[in-house]
Amino acid sequence: MARVSRPLSLNQATTKYWTLEETVRGCVAAGIPGIGVWRDRLDEIGVDAAARLLANSGLRVTSLCRGGFFTTGDGAAADNRQAVDESAAIGSPVLVLVCGGLPARSRDLVGARGRVRDGIADLVPYAAAAGVQLAIEPMHPMFCSDRGVVSTLGQALDLAAEFPADQVGVVVDSYHVWWDPDVQRQIARAADRIALVQVSDWITPLPAGALLGRGHIGDGHIDNRGLVEAAGRAGYDGFVEVEIFNEDIWATPGDETVRTVIERYQRVFTD
Amino acid sequence: MARVSRPLSLNQATTKYWTLEETVRGCVAAGIPGIGVWRDRLDEIGVDAAARLLANSGLRVTSLCRGGFFTTGDGAAADNRQAVDESAAIGSPVLVLVCGGLPARSRDLVGARGRVRDGIADLVPYAAAAGVQLAIEPMHPMFCSDRGVVSTLGQALDLAAEFPADQVGVVVDSYHVWWDPDVQRQIARAADRIALVQVSDWITPLPAGALLGRGHIGDGHIDNRGLVEAAGRAGYDGFVEVEIFNEDIWATPGDETVRTVIERYQRVFTD
Repeated sequence: MARVSRPLSLNQATTKYWTLEETVRGCVAAGIPGIGVWRDRLDEIGVDAAARLLANSGLRVTSLCRGGFFTTGDGAAADNRQAVDESAAIGSPVLVLVCGGLPARSRDLVGARGRVRDGIADLVPYAAAAGVQLAIEPMHPMFCSDRGVVSTLGQALDLAAEFPADQVGVVVDSYHVWWDPDVQRQIARAADRIALVQVSDWITPLPAGALLGRGHIGDGHIDNRGLVEAAGRAGYDGFVEVEIFNEDIWATPGDETVRTVIERYQRVFTD
Repeated sequence: MARVSRPLSLNQATTKYWTLEETVRGCVAAGIPGIGVWRDRLDEIGVDAAARLLANSGLRVTSLCRGGFFTTGDGAAADNRQAVDESAAIGSPVLVLVCGGLPARSRDLVGARGRVRDGIADLVPYAAAAGVQLAIEPMHPMFCSDRGVVSTLGQALDLAAEFPADQVGVVVDSYHVWWDPDVQRQIARAADRIALVQVSDWITPLPAGALLGRGHIGDGHIDNRGLVEAAGRAGYDGFVEVEIFNEDIWATPGDETVRTVIERYQRVFTD
């Protein structure tokens, strides 16, 4: 991995059909130094066992996915505190927040965005006390109604701005932000608010439901190198997570996916 | 139609399986005063015959769809001049510009956006001489790679700003812009640049390819009334076109679709 300009982290969503233990083993075997973890995969073995597994692996945990969903559920506050606890337990410095879409039949986008603001403000003291940075993830506008009403990096930064940067940052996920005419300026503005950088690629046609349409970096239209370099100029020196939702890639054996992830990462990001 | 605050126009894409003649007849029979026309449907009967048909119908032609595609084709300049000629021939005051996506394998989004700017500048004198206003249509960011690299109303207004408003305006299509945290401010800024307002609704899940996912107004998450009222406050007093791409709606008999369009239009926009 020596030639790669930023250390690579494998978000475990990319190897969907591997358990956490299999993904840990796959990263260690391949020399990938970081891992992004999902909460449903912690639940499979329990947080304590997962924490031991990760600590013993030597991997850096780069994020826990995910908290948020402030707009639609009454149970969000309790669940988000539990997500903070889980982040702290597994040594994840960052809890990714997918902020939630619109309730059924709602057209009150302004109201939903207000609830996101209030939900974050409610969670910040708890997360700060636990030493976990909340990371607001702007979602591609095609997910505005059903997953996340925070649609641009600028909007995420506006939300983050009322809190200290070490308590509330943002996720720069290339898949969500690449289209934005303002993205370079907003990455520069983000500076030490960048809690995490994630990459994948935009390929077409989108599948039904749009969620599982991501490709390996290099296969699509996103200038991932340009975006990662912009984050670097803004001061980000952390891991870059590869996070890909794609049925075909999920159906590929995990070891093969890991090899492709590494090969593409070196090709896209190495001089 | 007396209770409707803005005059209704039916974009003929909504009744996809009707010919132009059938759509004209359907609008007249239902009392819809305006029609948005597509170029491929002109071709079916020839521009001269279409111009006579439209002139004799008493309908107002509110737009011709579409020119543009500046980013990918060598033949765009000639085709766009022809589109201007067709607009003038059928009495359409507006030619809608769908500006084009990224060429195959390209990641040069900045370059593509530059070509859009140059393509518009090239077309403006010809269109102005013909008395046709070019209308830049920002496309939902999910179409950035394959249909339109102009992704926000703000970006469209930035492109339009170097030309007089009567020569280059913008389309406010609720489906493309509803998610934008800045949309209210940009509609106000647009003012007399608003050449056309189009409406449909955002429903989920998106179908494969994402293009045909629109719903009847009232069925989804878009605050169409709020957006149309904002356009009104900005000074827009023209027609509102209903433009819906949806296989199920297309499979419905045209007369039934027209009835639904009118019924929804009155429900959504009438006090």
